[in-house]
Amino acid sequence: MSNSQDLKTLQSEEVELTFEYERLQNCSISLDLTRGKPSTRQTDLSSKLDGILEDNFICEDGSDARNYGGLYGLPEARALGGELLALKPEQVLAGGNSSLTLMHLCVDQCLRLGLGEAKPWLADTKNPVMLCPVPGYDRHFAISESLGIKMQNIAMTDKGPDRAALREAVKNPDVVGIWCVPKYSNPTGCTYDEVTVAAIAQLPGTAACPEFKVFWDNAYSVHDLEVPPTKLASLMSHAQESGTENGVLLFASTSKITFAGSGIAFVGMSESNLAALGKHLAYMTIGPDKVNQLRHVRLLKNNITHHMQKHAAIIKPKFEAVEQCLTQKLGNRNIATWTKPTGGYFISLDTLPGLAKNVIKLAANAGVKLTPAGATYPYGRDPQDTNIRIAPTFVKLDDLEIGMEVVALCIQLATVRQQLENHT
Amino acid sequence: MSNSQDLKTLQSEEVELTFEYERLQNCSISLDLTRGKPSTRQTDLSSKLDGILEDNFICEDGSDARNYGGLYGLPEARALGGELLALKPEQVLAGGNSSLTLMHLCVDQCLRLGLGEAKPWLADTKNPVMLCPVPGYDRHFAISESLGIKMQNIAMTDKGPDRAALREAVKNPDVVGIWCVPKYSNPTGCTYDEVTVAAIAQLPGTAACPEFKVFWDNAYSVHDLEVPPTKLASLMSHAQESGTENGVLLFASTSKITFAGSGIAFVGMSESNLAALGKHLAYMTIGPDKVNQLRHVRLLKNNITHHMQKHAAIIKPKFEAVEQCLTQKLGNRNIATWTKPTGGYFISLDTLPGLAKNVIKLAANAGVKLTPAGATYPYGRDPQDTNIRIAPTFVKLDDLEIGMEVVALCIQLATVRQQLENHT
Repeated sequence: MSNSQDLKTLQSEEVELTFEYERLQNCSISLDLTRGKPSTRQTDLSSKLDGILEDNFICEDGSDARNYGGLYGLPEARALGGELLALKPEQVLAGGNSSLTLMHLCVDQCLRLGLGEAKPWLADTKNPVMLCPVPGYDRHFAISESLGIKMQNIAMTDKGPDRAALREAVKNPDVVGIWCVPKYSNPTGCTYDEVTVAAIAQLPGTAACPEFKVFWDNAYSVHDLEVPPTKLASLMSHAQESGTENGVLLFASTSKITFAGSGIAFVGMSESNLAALGKHLAYMTIGPDKVNQLRHVRLLKNNITHHMQKHAAIIKPKFEAVEQCLTQKLGNRNIATWTKPTGGYFISLDTLPGLAKNVIKLAANAGVKLTPAGATYPYGRDPQDTNIRIAPTFVKLDDLEIGMEVVALCIQLATVRQQLENHT
Repeated sequence: MSNSQDLKTLQSEEVELTFEYERLQNCSISLDLTRGKPSTRQTDLSSKLDGILEDNFICEDGSDARNYGGLYGLPEARALGGELLALKPEQVLAGGNSSLTLMHLCVDQCLRLGLGEAKPWLADTKNPVMLCPVPGYDRHFAISESLGIKMQNIAMTDKGPDRAALREAVKNPDVVGIWCVPKYSNPTGCTYDEVTVAAIAQLPGTAACPEFKVFWDNAYSVHDLEVPPTKLASLMSHAQESGTENGVLLFASTSKITFAGSGIAFVGMSESNLAALGKHLAYMTIGPDKVNQLRHVRLLKNNITHHMQKHAAIIKPKFEAVEQCLTQKLGNRNIATWTKPTGGYFISLDTLPGLAKNVIKLAANAGVKLTPAGATYPYGRDPQDTNIRIAPTFVKLDDLEIGMEVVALCIQLATVRQQLENHT
C-alpha cells in the first residue's frame, strides 16, 4: 500500500470512528469504572451481618463484645485474619475497618520510631525510598508520599516484580521497603509465583538497609474467580526459612468480602513485632470494634470459600464481558494489550505509548469515567502513558458492556489520530 | 487527752481496724473499680443496634452505607455529633470507634504538620508543653507523652481549671495547648462554669504560642444524672466571639452512650480546620464504618435524652451508694474528701497527703482493684499522693457497696497507721 493510500485509509477510518464516537456521546452515558467497589448485589450477600448476633454478644472466651478491652481484637477475629494471611492467630491483629490505616500506622512507625528492636529508618537515612512495582496501587503511593518517602518504580512481570531489578535496587541503603499486592495484583491481576515470593522474603536479609521491610497487602487473598483457585505461596513461611520474620508485614481486610468500609482490617507480623506495634497503638486506642468483629466471625467462620464463590458468580461474568469486548474490538490489531486475571478486582489495559491520558479524556467526554491517567504509578507519572485500570465490579453487566465499548472505541480513535499525526 | 492516752486510742483503733481489714481479706472479694466501663445492664440498653437497620442500608442522601465513600462520615452521623458538641454538622467529622484515635491524630498533626494554615508546633519550639488540669485523664497524658510533649499541671477547682494559673502559664511560648474534660470532668466530675469556658476560649488569642490549641474532650456531654441537667457553655460560641475558632478542637463519642468501643467518635472544629484534617486523614483511610454510623443514627436520632435517662436510672444509685458509704464511714472525720458529681463516670476521692498509694495497695490486698495511684496525674506522679479515682459504673450495686466499704476501711487504717508513725 502506498503512502497516500495508507493516509487515505487512516483518514477514512478516523472519520468513521469519530462518527461512531459522536453517536455514543449523544447516548447520555454516565458510568463510573474508576474504583474497585463491590456492587450492590455483592454487598447484599452480607446484609445479614446486621442482626446476625441475635442478641448474643458473648465471645468464645466468654467476654462481652460490647465493652472495652482487647487491643489486638477478638481471638476468633484474629484467627479469621490468620486464615486470610496464612498466619497463626497470635501473629495477627484484628483492627478497625481500614487496612490502609494499619499500613499508614506501620510505615510511620518504621520510619520515625522503629518497629520493636529495629532502628527508625530515619536514623539511617534522610532520604528513604520505597520500591513500587508498577503499575500498582495509588493509595500505597499516597502513604509513602504523605510521609516524605520517595518511590522507585520496579517493573512488574506476570509473575510479580522483576527479581533482578529488586536485587539491584536493594543495594542502595536508602531503599527501606517495598509495597506488594501479591495475589491478583492491583491492577494487573497477576499473582506472584513462589520463586518471587521466596526472593522477596529474602530481601530484608540481603538489603543494604538493615531495617528493610516488605509491606504485603494481600487484599485479594480469597477473591478467586476460578476453581481451583490460584495459589499464593506463604510469605511468612519463606521469611522463616530465610530468618527474616521481622522484615515482613502482611495486611488484609474484609472490605471486599462483606461491606466495603464496614469490615475488619488485619495486620500480621512476627509476634515480637506485633507486641511492639501494640505498644505504639495503645496510645491511640483502647481497642477495635469487637461487636463488628464478632458479626464477621459469625458470618465467615468456616464459610469463607462458600461466601467468596457467591461473589465470583456475580463478578466473573463482568471480567468475561471486558475480555470479550476487548478481544472483539481490539484483538489481533496490535493497538492494545490487557491482562486476564483469574481473580481480584481489576484488569490492566495498556495502549500504545502516549495514548492513555488521551483515551481516558475521550472516554470521560463520552460519559465513561476511568481511573485518572497515571494513577497506577508513583507521583501519578506513567512514564510511557499507556496504562488504564479497569474496575469492572461496581457497574451492572449491561452498563459495563456499554462502557467497555466506549473504551475500546476511544482506544481505536486515539490510536488512529496519533497515526495520522505521525504520518508523513 | 494526754499524749499517752492519745497513743493508746490510736493503737486500739489500729488493732480494731486491722481486725476488720483481715476479716474482709478472708471474704474472697474480687472487684474491679479501675476503669470507666458501662455495666452489662447499660450496654443492654443498646442491644437492638444489631439488627436495627432491618435490611435498609440507605442513608438520608440516598447512598448505600455498605459501600466506600465519605471521609467525613454520614451527614446524619455528623449531625448527631453536632448535637453532642453543640456544633453545626459541617463542623463535625464522624469517625471510627475511638475518640482517642482522633485526639492522637489531631495532636500529632498540630505538632508535626500544623493544622491548616497553622505552623507546626515543632517549627516554633523544640520543647512543647501541654497544660493538664489535675487530677485528669491518664490517656490524655499518655498521648502527650508518646508524642514527646511535656506536661504542666494546672490546679482544678470545682469550676474548672484555675483561671489565674492558666493566664500565667500561657505566657510561656512553649505552652502549645491544653487538655480539658469540660463536663463531669474525669475524675472530679466538675463542670466548667461559663466564665472558665470563656477564659479558655480566649487562650488561643492570648497565649504566647500563636498556634495554641484547646483539646476539649466532651466525653460526658449528655451523661447527666440529675434533672434538669448541668449545662456546659458552648466553647465554639465563645471562641467565635473571641475570634479563636481555629484554636479549639472538640471531641465526643458514643462509647458510653451505646457500646463501649463499638460506637462512633466525633471531632469538631472550624470548617477550614476540618478541611485540613480531612486532607491529612485521606492518606490513612477511605472513610469510617458508615453502616455502624447508620445504626447509631437510627437508634439515637431525636432519642438521646430519653436514652440517657435510662442510663441514669442504672448509674445514679451507684453514685449514691458511694456517697452514702463514704459519708457514713468517713464523714466529719477530716481524713478524706470526695466529689459529688451530678453526671459522668467518676468520683474523685482524696486522702490525707501521702496515703493514696498505700490505700490502693491495702484495697488490692483485700481484693478491690482501684485505678493505680498517680494515674490521674501526668507521668503518674501525684505530688501529694492523695488522689484515688472511683469508677462505680461497671460493678453491680451490692458489689460496689462492699468495694466502697473496703476502700473506706483502708483509708481509716492507712490514716491511723500514719498517725501512729508520726506519733513520737
